[in-house]
Amino acid sequence: MLLRANVLICSVLLIDSISSAQDSVPVDDWKPAVTNQNGKQFPQVNSEGRVRFRIHAPEATAVSCTFRESSEFVKDDKGFWTGYTRKLDEGFHYYELIIDGAKVPDPNSKYFFGAMRWGSGVEVPAKDKDFYAVRKVPHGQMREVLFYSESTQTDRRAFVYTPPGYDSDQKKRYPVLYLQHGWGENEYGWSVQGHAGLIMDNLLAEGKAKPFIIVMTYGMTNEVRFGGLRNFDIKHFETVLVKELIRYVDSNFRTLTDQPNRAMAGLSMGGMETKMITLRNLDKFSHIGLFSGGSISMDDVNNTEGFKEHVKLVFVSYGSKEVGGGRRPRRGGDPEANSKALKEAGINSHYYVSPDTAHEWQSWRRSLHEIAPLLFASEDSAE
Amino acid sequence: MLLRANVLICSVLLIDSISSAQDSVPVDDWKPAVTNQNGKQFPQVNSEGRVRFRIHAPEATAVSCTFRESSEFVKDDKGFWTGYTRKLDEGFHYYELIIDGAKVPDPNSKYFFGAMRWGSGVEVPAKDKDFYAVRKVPHGQMREVLFYSESTQTDRRAFVYTPPGYDSDQKKRYPVLYLQHGWGENEYGWSVQGHAGLIMDNLLAEGKAKPFIIVMTYGMTNEVRFGGLRNFDIKHFETVLVKELIRYVDSNFRTLTDQPNRAMAGLSMGGMETKMITLRNLDKFSHIGLFSGGSISMDDVNNTEGFKEHVKLVFVSYGSKEVGGGRRPRRGGDPEANSKALKEAGINSHYYVSPDTAHEWQSWRRSLHEIAPLLFASEDSAE
Repeated sequence: MLLRANVLICSVLLIDSISSAQDSVPVDDWKPAVTNQNGKQFPQVNSEGRVRFRIHAPEATAVSCTFRESSEFVKDDKGFWTGYTRKLDEGFHYYELIIDGAKVPDPNSKYFFGAMRWGSGVEVPAKDKDFYAVRKVPHGQMREVLFYSESTQTDRRAFVYTPPGYDSDQKKRYPVLYLQHGWGENEYGWSVQGHAGLIMDNLLAEGKAKPFIIVMTYGMTNEVRFGGLRNFDIKHFETVLVKELIRYVDSNFRTLTDQPNRAMAGLSMGGMETKMITLRNLDKFSHIGLFSGGSISMDDVNNTEGFKEHVKLVFVSYGSKEVGGGRRPRRGGDPEANSKALKEAGINSHYYVSPDTAHEWQSWRRSLHEIAPLLFASEDSAE
Repeated sequence: MLLRANVLICSVLLIDSISSAQDSVPVDDWKPAVTNQNGKQFPQVNSEGRVRFRIHAPEATAVSCTFRESSEFVKDDKGFWTGYTRKLDEGFHYYELIIDGAKVPDPNSKYFFGAMRWGSGVEVPAKDKDFYAVRKVPHGQMREVLFYSESTQTDRRAFVYTPPGYDSDQKKRYPVLYLQHGWGENEYGWSVQGHAGLIMDNLLAEGKAKPFIIVMTYGMTNEVRFGGLRNFDIKHFETVLVKELIRYVDSNFRTLTDQPNRAMAGLSMGGMETKMITLRNLDKFSHIGLFSGGSISMDDVNNTEGFKEHVKLVFVSYGSKEVGGGRRPRRGGDPEANSKALKEAGINSHYYVSPDTAHEWQSWRRSLHEIAPLLFASEDSAE
């Protein structure tokens, strides 16, 4: 089964935050970004959501950044170049600096994997950032594991979030959410820029979710490159996830191994993978989450044997800038209408729109925060 | 107690691998470095241990790298600059590219924390690299944990290596090694470029070491900056480690909590920290490892009450290029002579010199590989 996703990828690249260009003097309340390397004063963010960069490049003739509609970078007499962006959406953004034509990471930022590379990222503080802040609450563990995959003949990495208390009560077993990154990202995304662990720690401290294990691994199993998604075949990753990783996790963690206690969710391409894998394996998955990655229609329901009996939750979300104002995803129909149709057909269907965000991590952090309280909440998911 | 370590830091910067400059045409057997980002063809390494870089910087007038004695970088008609290094020692090296005066990470490499920054690193394959290779053996887990530190009023990160089988036999308890990075590095160093987990997985698969837990946290607790080590005060980190982290680990992991089952080791500045903390807390630590970070003299033994009764192992190591050919560390006397004197005084003292390496990670990977079989090996360390 081939996934012809190039159309969606193109639309993803076009859907972006539309905000005012450099139409005024920036507000002078700049603060170092939280994504900076320790002690670095730049990049800085102001209350408008602009980001200001500074880099020492004394011999350069031109410096810029990959945020479109940014200001010109100006060089001072000590060789420091400074420039700033338009007003950006709240949340996390990937970027690069361009020095005399060389696209390079900003030496002042920390590095994140996205757009098929480790590179710079910057956080524009969101009004609701507290839900993924480091709070003085019990913390789970983010465990890096290596599992052997027979089908790919490789040791593959996964990150496994175990909730607070996992090690103390050895009798307790946990449901599991398999959680996928997007195209061009990798298994680090959800634990690093996605703050999945902190989101769960905070929800659990507030008693707003049932504790569950989260498993995150690399979903671009056949190593597709830019433009190559048309040749993406789900069966490679489906084999790794369904035949190999689930077995590893169920053997090495105290999981509840029955279908009612296994969920899958993903963002963007990870949403498409989630839909394809869960609908082909409804004996294994009961809860489905698609974040900015399509939706499930009544056609899908009707074409999938046993859907209504097996599926306990369908959660679909988008950033408002992906679906608002008449915009809608190019593939898969209108997600809100699809979600409503499922609900009317008696399916536990939830639709969430992240306010004022686009196809970016703030939408997906919020989506995890929204879906988590709904997971394994039905009476079928007994311990 | 102030640690006036600036002299040692200076010597660290001077001690470097001395090898032939660009005295001949490089051997043309270049291969992409294992530290490259996925799919990147550069940097490349040849059989002489030279590293060749390539970066697209069409408008730049000068490109170079931070390895001294490198070739000039030459630009082709497509705007790609290429240059190569002298013959480097086997193992891992930090570096940066310099584009028209801007020091930036190489967009082709993965990023590592060293020299007080996340930046580029490159691996020159070592003849003995198999001891930290990913092999088809049982793998432990590398767990990221957050522990609350009252003294610094922060949630602090640690990485905790748990050996294979840790989760399966809930009756078994484990000794613990607290393992410290060097100056300008952080808590990621040992698990990422140090390959501590793989070193232990492989040793355990061969039955060459007792399984133990390794705990790695950030040791520059008072946030010293370049040149500021003269103001470094061990008491801040000692409090975090001895009062807070040990309690956290002993509460959250199945540890053996008695003195015979707790070790501390560290590299460079981490070695100095290890010496200072263990000698002040011999009721808590029995095994001491100093990697390129000083040694323990008979004066130290005689000035430390109860040393002979409490200390079950003193392990000291250096790279041959730090101590060979008449060179020796500027501080702490001759480590080999010190080690020998301890042995003659009946102390379990081991001295190891890593062949053909300097003050770099290959020395420290080998040091962990050498010390691990000696840890908790005496009959006092019973389970």
